[in-house]
Amino acid sequence: MRDLKKKDKLVEAAGDAYDKTLTLLPLDVCSDESVKQCINNVKDRHIDILINNAGVGLLGPVESISIEDMKRVFETNFFGVVRMIKEVMPDMKKRRSGHIVVMSSVMGLQGVVFNDVYTASKFAMEGFCESMAVQLMKFNVRLSMIEPGPVHTEFETKMMADVAKMEYPGADADTVRYFKDVYLPSSIDIFESMGQTPEDIAKCTKKVIESSSPRFRNLTNSLYTPIVALKYADETGGLSVNTFYNLLFNFGPLMHITMSILKCLTCSCLRRRTISPN
Amino acid sequence: MRDLKKKDKLVEAAGDAYDKTLTLLPLDVCSDESVKQCINNVKDRHIDILINNAGVGLLGPVESISIEDMKRVFETNFFGVVRMIKEVMPDMKKRRSGHIVVMSSVMGLQGVVFNDVYTASKFAMEGFCESMAVQLMKFNVRLSMIEPGPVHTEFETKMMADVAKMEYPGADADTVRYFKDVYLPSSIDIFESMGQTPEDIAKCTKKVIESSSPRFRNLTNSLYTPIVALKYADETGGLSVNTFYNLLFNFGPLMHITMSILKCLTCSCLRRRTISPN
Repeated sequence: MRDLKKKDKLVEAAGDAYDKTLTLLPLDVCSDESVKQCINNVKDRHIDILINNAGVGLLGPVESISIEDMKRVFETNFFGVVRMIKEVMPDMKKRRSGHIVVMSSVMGLQGVVFNDVYTASKFAMEGFCESMAVQLMKFNVRLSMIEPGPVHTEFETKMMADVAKMEYPGADADTVRYFKDVYLPSSIDIFESMGQTPEDIAKCTKKVIESSSPRFRNLTNSLYTPIVALKYADETGGLSVNTFYNLLFNFGPLMHITMSILKCLTCSCLRRRTISPN
Repeated sequence: MRDLKKKDKLVEAAGDAYDKTLTLLPLDVCSDESVKQCINNVKDRHIDILINNAGVGLLGPVESISIEDMKRVFETNFFGVVRMIKEVMPDMKKRRSGHIVVMSSVMGLQGVVFNDVYTASKFAMEGFCESMAVQLMKFNVRLSMIEPGPVHTEFETKMMADVAKMEYPGADADTVRYFKDVYLPSSIDIFESMGQTPEDIAKCTKKVIESSSPRFRNLTNSLYTPIVALKYADETGGLSVNTFYNLLFNFGPLMHITMSILKCLTCSCLRRRTISPN
């Protein structure tokens, strides 16, 4: 954890495991020093499974986002993971065993309007790991991506409420209107109808690390598979761009109804069935 | 150009156009200041077509590459483009016209072993632009990616020669051996058999900017389409990872022969036919 003072909820959830099989160490993935120190404090520096879960979000018109703010997102979401992999991978390669898991996102596979920078940071991670996976296979080290869709967290609820109230200096009035009045409501619809819980993602992650032959890619929400497939169906990219454009700007009310129906249909028991991999 | 002192070759190639229709301005895409100044020096800041062509390469085992060196690649390949788009796009949106072209790479669509960081920077650009394209369509501003495969340039020849001689501190002996004795020879094979010329890429770019309905994605080399399609054919990612693994580590000699045959078959006249879009 970055701040061990915030450990209470985790310690409570861990129960008896804490101090028996669970140890917490301070770690800031944005600091070379902290990453080295954390791994050095693990017995023999021996890590069997590295799960990269740290991540930050960023939402809104790029006109209002400074390059510095964009770099902060990359510092955690991309370079944070690269730091961890650089620190842990050489020992795994030497031992010819180990499993690296990276918490990516469907936004690492398909761009989403007004999520330009977050999407870019997750795409970067996908590209880095696609390249590493081939080499790591030669050393019997496994690499798996987990790609959740929308997930209900306190973090997400707070961010949605914050962005609706914020001003967006630098962005023109039309862009701000498309963001607040078109994108945000449809995004809330999608969260309510397709959103998974953090527990769903944890279950998926457990399946991935327990598998004898873990997959490289793991979309946790099968409702999202058709959305990603659009891109793969047309190499010119036109199908994806046009579909998302129409969904957002032309069929907004239709989409709201569809999402409301989907929300009724996918009651929690049904929605649990959509957790991949099965 | 970053350095106008190096303009001679370009001025010579431009011929009469220089000083009549061609103006050169100093620009360093890594500097907010330089980007602003360059655009301010354009008459009325009016840009019809922005082509983002600046890019740097990076090759080798990540164990030997510092986070600082990785950030330098992102500074040009990703943040450089974002800086230019942020500076030019608001005026285009206001005018409801314009075309942004980004020189990406097939490595923005498919990871390649030992190109982990370069791949990541190009993936980041693809994700950013996929997200932007939907919004820009609403403002009648077009966005196109150009995805070349290998291209013969002085830069590339020099880089290949340099990396073969370099030491790779931090990387283990096996990794360095796979890089120098397995990856590099097969990469040179691929360049020789599938490589295009900078002129080919220029022709493709001309087609894209002259098209009345430009495509979002434009792979310049149709020989690469099947390689990218592998990823789209299997959502688990297993097909791509296994194929590239086998091509590199198990079928090296077979691949060398295949590439040699391909090199003979794709004589320059035939190879020109593979330039997309047609």
